[in-house]
Amino acid sequence: MIRDTLVAEEDFLYSRIAERLELQIENKTLKAGDKLMSLRALSREQGISLSTAYKAYVELENKGIVEARPKSGYFVRFPKSRYPKSPDTPTAAPVIQKTNVDDMIRTVYKTLTKEGMLRFSVSAPSIELIPEAKLNKAMMEALRKSSSSCTQYEEIQGNSELRKQIARQTFNWNGNITEDQIVTTQGCMEALVFCLKAVTQPGDTVAIESPVYFGIFNLLKMLGLKVLEIPCHPDNGADIEYLEKALETEPVKACLFVPNFSNPVGALMPEHRKKYLVEMLASRQIPLIEDDIYGEMYFGKTRPKTCKSFDKNGLVMLCSSVSKSLAPGYRVGWCIPGKFMDNVLSNKLTQTVSAATPTQAAIALFFETGRYDLHMRKLRKALHTQCLRYMQAISEYFPADIKVARPQGGYVLWIELNAGINAFDLFESAIKEDISIAPGQIFSTDARFTNYIRISFGKPFDNAIDAGLRRLGELISLQQYCK
Amino acid sequence: MIRDTLVAEEDFLYSRIAERLELQIENKTLKAGDKLMSLRALSREQGISLSTAYKAYVELENKGIVEARPKSGYFVRFPKSRYPKSPDTPTAAPVIQKTNVDDMIRTVYKTLTKEGMLRFSVSAPSIELIPEAKLNKAMMEALRKSSSSCTQYEEIQGNSELRKQIARQTFNWNGNITEDQIVTTQGCMEALVFCLKAVTQPGDTVAIESPVYFGIFNLLKMLGLKVLEIPCHPDNGADIEYLEKALETEPVKACLFVPNFSNPVGALMPEHRKKYLVEMLASRQIPLIEDDIYGEMYFGKTRPKTCKSFDKNGLVMLCSSVSKSLAPGYRVGWCIPGKFMDNVLSNKLTQTVSAATPTQAAIALFFETGRYDLHMRKLRKALHTQCLRYMQAISEYFPADIKVARPQGGYVLWIELNAGINAFDLFESAIKEDISIAPGQIFSTDARFTNYIRISFGKPFDNAIDAGLRRLGELISLQQYCK
Repeated sequence: MIRDTLVAEEDFLYSRIAERLELQIENKTLKAGDKLMSLRALSREQGISLSTAYKAYVELENKGIVEARPKSGYFVRFPKSRYPKSPDTPTAAPVIQKTNVDDMIRTVYKTLTKEGMLRFSVSAPSIELIPEAKLNKAMMEALRKSSSSCTQYEEIQGNSELRKQIARQTFNWNGNITEDQIVTTQGCMEALVFCLKAVTQPGDTVAIESPVYFGIFNLLKMLGLKVLEIPCHPDNGADIEYLEKALETEPVKACLFVPNFSNPVGALMPEHRKKYLVEMLASRQIPLIEDDIYGEMYFGKTRPKTCKSFDKNGLVMLCSSVSKSLAPGYRVGWCIPGKFMDNVLSNKLTQTVSAATPTQAAIALFFETGRYDLHMRKLRKALHTQCLRYMQAISEYFPADIKVARPQGGYVLWIELNAGINAFDLFESAIKEDISIAPGQIFSTDARFTNYIRISFGKPFDNAIDAGLRRLGELISLQQYCK
Repeated sequence: MIRDTLVAEEDFLYSRIAERLELQIENKTLKAGDKLMSLRALSREQGISLSTAYKAYVELENKGIVEARPKSGYFVRFPKSRYPKSPDTPTAAPVIQKTNVDDMIRTVYKTLTKEGMLRFSVSAPSIELIPEAKLNKAMMEALRKSSSSCTQYEEIQGNSELRKQIARQTFNWNGNITEDQIVTTQGCMEALVFCLKAVTQPGDTVAIESPVYFGIFNLLKMLGLKVLEIPCHPDNGADIEYLEKALETEPVKACLFVPNFSNPVGALMPEHRKKYLVEMLASRQIPLIEDDIYGEMYFGKTRPKTCKSFDKNGLVMLCSSVSKSLAPGYRVGWCIPGKFMDNVLSNKLTQTVSAATPTQAAIALFFETGRYDLHMRKLRKALHTQCLRYMQAISEYFPADIKVARPQGGYVLWIELNAGINAFDLFESAIKEDISIAPGQIFSTDARFTNYIRISFGKPFDNAIDAGLRRLGELISLQQYCK
C-alpha cells in the first residue's frame, strides 16, 4: 500500500511538470522549434530527480509535442496552435447517393478481418490496450468463488456484486446510485433497447443527435420508431436550443443522446448544458436515454458528469457497458433506468431471462480488486497520447483546408474535408490499399455528411499508422485536385 | 480410446439385461412382489460376471422398479401398471381467478432462493447434475486458445467452432445442417425473439400449444402478437387437426411449438405427425418456429427427430440452447432459421451485436472434446431414473383419482388433480411449508388449468423429495376432502 502511494506521488509530480510545460507551449511562451532546458537544468530548477525530469520530457515526447534530437536536446515539435480548426455543422441539403446508407455500412464493415488492414473505422480500443491476462485471472477467480461455478442464472437485476461496483463508480460523476437502481444487460445496445421499449411504442418519435452512430438509428428503425435529428456540434454537443424549439411542434416521446464524447463527433456537452437539458426535458415529462459508454474515456483530470447527475425525477435512463473500456466480447453492460425500472426488468426477463453469469462475475471481480481503475488510468493516458499523435499526423499529411474536432475524450476524430470530397468514394479508394475509414455518410439516415470522415485513434501510434495516414492524405489530395 | 470402448460395451450389456427384466415386469410376466432370481443365478444364466448382474439389478433399483430386501434378495416393487392414467385435456370454460396470471407467476417464482425450499416448480437440472469442474476447465482452455482471450466481439453469426459442433449434433436427428445455417444467440428465448421478429409484425396471430410455458406467451405479449391456443395432449403433442381446422378461419402468421417434450405437458410428438405438421404448414407458406430445448433429454434409445428434420422449404426455424442440458448461466443458444437467416442476423446485430465470446468458446470446446456427449448420456439416465422415482412416489402419496402424464423425456410431470382442486390455492398452502410447485393456472393466458400442477423431477430423488411429495399428497387430500 505504501509503495502504491509513493508511486502515485511520483506520477503526480512528473505529470504536473509535463502539464506546465505543455501549457507554456500552448500559449506560445515556448514556440515550435524552441529548445527546452536540459534535463539537468530542469532537475536543478524544479528540485526533482533526473529520473522524474526525464519522465516529464518522455511524456511530452509521447504526445508528440516535443521531440528528442540526438546530442542536441528536446525541442518543441507540435504546438496545439498548429491543429486545424473544428468542423462546422453542415447546412446544405443532402447529396443523393448512388448507394444507400445500409449498403454503405455493410460495405465498410465487412472487410475488417483482413490481415494488415488499418482499421481506422473501428471505434474501440485495440487489443494491445486490453489487460487480457488479468481478465483471464478474474474469470478463473469468479468461477472458483461461485458456489455453482457460474452455471446458474443470475438474479433478474443482474450480478449483485457487479451492481455494487457500478454503483461505486457512479460516485465519480456525483451519482448517488445504489445497486438496486441498476440492471445489468448484455452490452450497451441491449440496455438502449430495454430503455426505448420502456418509454416508446412503434410509431413514436425519438430525438437523436446528428451525426450519430449508425447502430442507434438502426435500432430505432428496428423498433419502428421515427427519428428527429438534432444537430450535434463538436464543441459542445447536441443543440439544445434547436431541440427546445422543435419540441414546440414535434411530438417527441423520448430523447437519446451521447453527452460524453459522442460518436462520431466526440463532443463533450458542458456541465451547465447537461443540467439545462435535463431540467428542460423534465418540465415536459420527456424521458432522456443517456448513452454514457464513452464517459470513462476522458483525457482531463476529472470524470465528466452525466445528465443522470442532474436527474431529480427519475426521467433520465443511463446506459453503459465495459465494451469500450475493457472487453466487448464479454457483453457486460448496465442501465440505471430511474422510474422505469419495472418495465425494463420485465423486458429483460421476457427476452433474455438473464445476462451471462460468468462474464458478469468476472467483471465484478475486476472492478472489486481495483484492476479496473488501474487499467482505466493507463487507458486514458494512452488514448490521450494517441489522440494527439493522430491529430498531428493528420495536420501534417492532410490538405491544409481540413477541419478536425478536438475531442476531450473517447476514440474518434471527426474530420471535415473539402466540400468537393465524397467520403464514400474516398473509402473505396482507401480500402483497396487496406486502409479502412468510416465515411461520414453512414452517420445519418440521409447520408448528408458527404465530405466528413471519422478516424479512430484506438490503436497505439506506430509507423504503419503514420504511413497509413500519410497515404490517406495523398488519396484525399488526389480526389480534391484531380477531378 | 480402447478403454472407452470396453466401458461402453459393458454399459450396453448390463443395460440390456435390465431392460429385458423391465419388460418382463411391465407385461406382468413378473408381478409386484415377485422375487427376482439371485445374482449368482442371473450371472450363470446370462453368462455374465457377477458385477454385471449386480449393475443390472442396481439399475432397476435406482428406477424404483425393484427393491433389495436384506438377506432376502431382489423383489419387484413398482410395475408401470401401477402408474396413474394420463391426464385429459380440459374442455370446461376457465374459472375466474381472483388473482391474474402475471401476478401468479410473480408469486410462484419470487421465493425460490430460500434455503431448504423444495423447488418442484423449476424445470431444469439441479446443480448436482452439472459437470462444473469440466465446464470450468473448458472455460480456461477457451480463454487460453483465443488469440485475444475472448475479449473481442465474435463474428455476427457466432463462434464458428460452436456452430460446427451444433451442426454435428444435428446428425442425431437426421438434420443435414451446416455451420452456415446456424446463428448463435444468448439462450433459447432470444432465439425465439429473433425468429418471431423475422416472420411477424405487431398485431399478427401466432399459434401456440396450450398449456404452454408462460415465458412464451409473455414473449408474444411483449412483441404485440395475438395468440391462438392449440390444445396439447400428453400422449402426442399439439392437436394438428385442430390447428388445420383453425387455419381455415384464423389468419395465423406463424406457429410456435415444442414438439419434443413440451413444457408443461411433456408430450413427444410422434414422427409421422411432425412430418404431417411441417408439410401442412408448408403448403400454406406458414413458418413454424420449433423450440427444441428439451430435444436432447430423451429417455429412449434414440434422439427423437425434430420438425426441422422434415423441412424442405426453409420454413421451419429451430431454436435451442444448452440451458436445460448444461449451463443456463452461460446463455448459449442458437437457431437454425432456414430462409429467414438474413432477417434474424439483422435483428441480432442491431440489438445485441454479438453473444458473449468466452461462454460460446467454452461450450464449443465442451462439445468438441466429447465431454458434452458423455455428460448427456449420464444426464438422460439420471433424468429417466428420477422421472420414474417421482412418478412412483406421486402414485403412492397423491389421491387415487389423479392422472399423470408419462413423459418420454424432459423434466416435468403434468398432473391432473380432482376437478374440485384449485392448484393456486394448493401452491399457497404448500409454499408455507417450503414446497414450491407450479400451479396449472400459470400455463395459459386465461388460467384455465385450474386443477393441474406441474412437478419437475430435475433433482435426484432423496428423502427430502420423498417427504415433500408425501406432504404434497396430504395437502391435496386436505383440500379435496375438507372443503
